[in-house]
Parts: sequence; structure tokens; C-alpha cells
Amino acid sequence: MERLLMGPGPSNPYPEVAAALVRPVTGHLDPAFLDLLDETCERLRTVFATGNALTLPLSGTGSAGMEAAMVNLVEPGAPVVVGVNGLFGERIAEVARRAGADVVRVEAPWGEPLDPAALVGAHPAPSVIALVHAETSTGVRNDVAAVAAGKGDALVVADVVTSLGGIEVAVDEWGVDVAYSCSQKCLGAPPGLAPITVSDRARSRLVANPRSWYLDLSLIAAYVEAGGGRTYHHTAPVTMVSALHGALGAVLAEGLDTVRERHRRCGQALQDGLERLGLRLLAPEGHRLPQLTTVVVPDDLPGGASEADVRRRLLQDWGVEIGSGAGRLAGKVWRIGCMGHTARRRNVDALLAALAEVLDR
Amino acid sequence: MERLLMGPGPSNPYPEVAAALVRPVTGHLDPAFLDLLDETCERLRTVFATGNALTLPLSGTGSAGMEAAMVNLVEPGAPVVVGVNGLFGERIAEVARRAGADVVRVEAPWGEPLDPAALVGAHPAPSVIALVHAETSTGVRNDVAAVAAGKGDALVVADVVTSLGGIEVAVDEWGVDVAYSCSQKCLGAPPGLAPITVSDRARSRLVANPRSWYLDLSLIAAYVEAGGGRTYHHTAPVTMVSALHGALGAVLAEGLDTVRERHRRCGQALQDGLERLGLRLLAPEGHRLPQLTTVVVPDDLPGGASEADVRRRLLQDWGVEIGSGAGRLAGKVWRIGCMGHTARRRNVDALLAALAEVLDR
Repeated sequence: MERLLMGPGPSNPYPEVAAALVRPVTGHLDPAFLDLLDETCERLRTVFATGNALTLPLSGTGSAGMEAAMVNLVEPGAPVVVGVNGLFGERIAEVARRAGADVVRVEAPWGEPLDPAALVGAHPAPSVIALVHAETSTGVRNDVAAVAAGKGDALVVADVVTSLGGIEVAVDEWGVDVAYSCSQKCLGAPPGLAPITVSDRARSRLVANPRSWYLDLSLIAAYVEAGGGRTYHHTAPVTMVSALHGALGAVLAEGLDTVRERHRRCGQALQDGLERLGLRLLAPEGHRLPQLTTVVVPDDLPGGASEADVRRRLLQDWGVEIGSGAGRLAGKVWRIGCMGHTARRRNVDALLAALAEVLDR
Repeated sequence: MERLLMGPGPSNPYPEVAAALVRPVTGHLDPAFLDLLDETCERLRTVFATGNALTLPLSGTGSAGMEAAMVNLVEPGAPVVVGVNGLFGERIAEVARRAGADVVRVEAPWGEPLDPAALVGAHPAPSVIALVHAETSTGVRNDVAAVAAGKGDALVVADVVTSLGGIEVAVDEWGVDVAYSCSQKCLGAPPGLAPITVSDRARSRLVANPRSWYLDLSLIAAYVEAGGGRTYHHTAPVTMVSALHGALGAVLAEGLDTVRERHRRCGQALQDGLERLGLRLLAPEGHRLPQLTTVVVPDDLPGGASEADVRRRLLQDWGVEIGSGAGRLAGKVWRIGCMGHTARRRNVDALLAALAEVLDR
């Protein structure tokens, strides 16, 4: 059965993506492709709300965006403050450690937001302060703007993997230096690319010869930016760039504000509906993400079912995918996404009806 | 105009790829996708000619495969012998250096093959010996089997980016420990994935906590291998995996031997035709790749045209892409690919006719 994708991603791609995927393949140096790439980068600037010249889709998934941010900004031994209140904060800390950082962790319980003041004050002179905007493991929104406002001389790295296109992300206005995302959530393309944007300030501090050659932003810039002479680095994944171009076209045709309002209304309807079913949401009100909702698995599942049984029935009988808990929340929560093209009221209604039946509520 | 892709890659995908690209997106943990992934890995084992359990498509382009091989095998300070007779050998040396290796270079002139005995004898106890099988910058085939036969206690890493599916690659028979490739050349899918295979011997020596988290093969294995519990690492690029699955299906339906024979015949026809036009091939006879031919740019281009003018005319007037020279061969050669679905006699004939007209020969 064709899937309704209401897990933590991928979401169902926008219809425009199918046509974009089968556009005939061209060379990565073909002028026709370079035009498409340039336009994709320009569309990304719009959704990131930035004028950053260095804004592009990296040739990997969202986690490659995270790794690119760290390896290009972190000199071995540099102090890096990382906010950790979920699996993806943990991941940033681990990736930064492998990049050679002296990691300073600032924690909050999983399910609670980070304290911006604690992040800003954690180290007298951090090289980087990094945090997740929309923590996909908990459904909690962290206040990136407040952290960026107090960054001082540090660079602020924001993981906007689950937020970009779903809730406001304002890279320039907030003063974020590097933000990275993915293609398969609120942007509504298949997984495989990591949009990233880098401020001029961050650019002036890029590590020379970072540990990763594949994710070396200076080398990649020389290909992506027309002014860099289109110097070959690696073969751009032309088909996926075309898909992202198509999805971004759909988002911008609808209007970024309208798309975000659609996410807001769907998320509200979903969360209201879940509470009407007597389910408890993990994230506290005021810090919830509309596009990713964590639901506490109730103790009294009918017929002695496990939480995995519930997900399996939804997938097999309704063709609806929801996500399991991740990391220390495995087995304890479900994660319900309402992202991109999937963020429609009729999908919310379908999921709630199916869940009511499976949970016998 | 739709492109005939006769550069160094991408090639034109097999027709089966279009249907595979628009297969509805599923979650990366959906049983339906995991079946497709398992089957893709099994198809890769067939084309690599290996029984290696750890055989999979990495979520990046061919260069990510190179980086994965190096960061997962090289402890900082370890001696790594690298064969360098072209741009991609240079790239291995650079990637190995960034991974912390003590790189021992064994060189041959660009356009000549490496001496296997020189590679084997370059260091008394190398940790890794790495070389490019089909050097895409020069069109030269290096003798991987001879190097692997003399490897002793070292691990042999073979870059089969341009060879896999086009000429014989026999990972197990030759004793290659790690081989990586790409999706967009002789395998006939779009660019974006890096098939890789790792012997059990190499697996027992994988670096713990390598510098790259994204390319950490131990973590990736726990997702890709059913026995690893399907532990989430990153969101698999489901659409590209489907495309590769479709392309591999086309290759195996035709038969790997038949596909390679088709590459051989097309390459021979191309090289014969180029010589009939009075053009000189860079690679010496006996070491030429059928799938990638380097042609020396003649001095006497008609009308004072530059080599770039020739490529531009082929692209604009015939819709045929050929590649420029790369690295120190920039401006000095053209690179003509005849790979995957593109490797057809009628494409060779079309290119030769167009080239004859543009070169006025």
C-alpha cells in the first residue's frame, strides 16, 4: 500500500518532485544544470531567510550537513558549546568531538527546552555554540534566536533539519552563522541532500584543509559559486538537486508563510486530537513543534499490544507510518510528523481515526 | 536538447531508472524499503564479485566512498602506500593525509600505468595499499590484481569508481579488501551513491570512532545489516537507492559479462574511430580503458578554435557532452566516456560523426 508518511521523515514529497526526478540527467558542469543549481541555491536563500553567498545543497543527508558544519569550523582543541536535550544534540556533541573539539555540554532533560542563557554563559570564549532548533527526538523547539543574540565572538551553528520550511527560521535576522537542514522533512523532497548556509563571518573562519575532504566547504564553494570558476570537486547529484529544486518551487509557489501556517494548523489539529484521545504529549505547551509531535505511549495498550504492534498495525492496515522513540525515548514515545506535503488536515484526520481504532479509544 | 552523456560521468541512466525514481517514497525503516535495500546490496555483491557481508550503497557520491575507505581504515600515523598516476590517485593521497595517514606515494607519469611491484615494495609494513583501478583522468587501467596478490599483511583498497560494471572487477578472487565505486558511470544510475564492499579481514581492522561520524562503517553496518538490529544512523536516501536498484537490475538482466563485452566493443570502436580521424590517444595500447578514452587535443583546431569551443559546439549543436581534461591535463585532452546505458554503437557513431564535422577531418 502506498504510504502516508507521518513519521519523523521522510514525508511524502510534493507532486512536483516526481517530474523533477525524471528530468533527463545532465552533466554536473552542463550550463543547463549549473542554472538549475544556481536557482536551487537562490531558493534555499529564500527559505533560510539569508543573503549568504555560500548557500547550497550538500551531497549527503542532513547528518552530512551537521558533519560539514563541525569539520569546517572546528580546529582541534577548540572549545565548542553544544546544547544537548535530545538525540540530535547528542549527535552534534559526538560529531564535534570527532572533529577534534573540546566539547562543553549544556544539558536539559529530554522533553524540555534548552536554557539560552546557560548556552551563552557556558564558556568564556567558545569558538562555536551549536544547538538543535527542532529536536526531532523529543518534539521540542529550542530558542535559537536568543542564543544567537548572545553569541559574542562565537559562531552559532543551528541544526534546522526538522524546522526549515515548517516553522520560522530567520538566519540573517537571528544572527545564525551556519545552519544546515535536510531535504526530506518540511521541504518535501526525498532524502539525500543537506541544504546548508554559511555567513561571511563564518566563512572567514573556515578551517584550512579540514579533516573531511568530501565536505570541505572551501573546495565545494569553488564549484557551486560561479565566481569560483566551477572547479570540479565531486560529481553533483544532479537528480536529487533537481528534486529539491522542484520541492522548493512548490513551497515558494504556495508561499513560505502560507506553508508554515499550514504546518501550524495541522500540528495544532493533531495535538488537539491526540489529547482528545486521552494521550499525553511529551513536549510542554509553548515549546511544541507543530511538525513533529511526541506522544507518550500509554501503559494500557489494548490486548497487551506493544508500542511496536501499534505502529505495525497502522502501517499494515492503514498504510500510515509513524515513528518510534529514539535513543533513551525508545519504547516510550511515538513520533508523529506532519511535514511538507504531508501537512494536510485530511492526513491528520486519517491518522487520528486510525489511531483511535487501534488504541480502542 | 536532451543530452547524450559521453563525458567522464554521469552517463545516461538505464530506462529502468526512471520508474525506480518515482516509486513512492517510504520510510527508511519500512520493511518494504529494507527488502529493497537488502536486494540492492545483494546485487552489488554480484557486480563486485564478492561474498562480503558488508557491501552497501553509501549515502554520498563516489568521493564519499573514497573518504569512507580511508577514515575507517587509517589510524593517525599509519603508513599508507598510494599509487599516483592521475588526479584520482592524487585525491586518494590527499584524503588519506587528512585522515591522518603517513602517505607513501608511488608515482607513474600521468598516462602510464602504475608498477605493481613498486607499490608492493614501497614500504616494509604498510597498513594500507591504495590505488585507482580505472584512472578517470587519464584513461589508464592499473593492475589491481597484481597489487593485491602481493599485499602481504596490508589491506588493499581499490577505487573502482570508473571500472565497476565496465571492465572486470573481481574483489574476492583478486583479494581486494575494500573497493568503492559510484552510481553514475558504468552502473547506469544517476550520481549520488557510493557502492562499497569491505572484506571480513578489513572489517576486523576498522578504526573505532573514526574521524567521520557520517561515514562510520561500523555504525552504518548496524543499520544496513539485518543482524545489526536496523539501528538508525542516518535517513537512507530511499529514492536514490531505488534508482540504483533499478539500474543494477538492468545490468544483471542483460548479464554482467554481456554488459562488459558491450563496453569492450564500444570502446574499441570509439578508439579505432578516433585514430581513423588522426587523433592521438593518451593511454598506451594494452592499458586503455574501453569505457573512458583520453584523446590528445590536436594543435591545429579549425578556425583557431579552443578545445573548450569544440566541446561547446558538440553540446550545443549535437547535444553531446564530452569531458575536458582534469588536473594537469586540463586543456590538453578530451575525455570521452562510453559507460552504462550510453555504451551503444549508435552513440559511438554519433559522436565520431559529430567530432569529424567539428574538427573538419
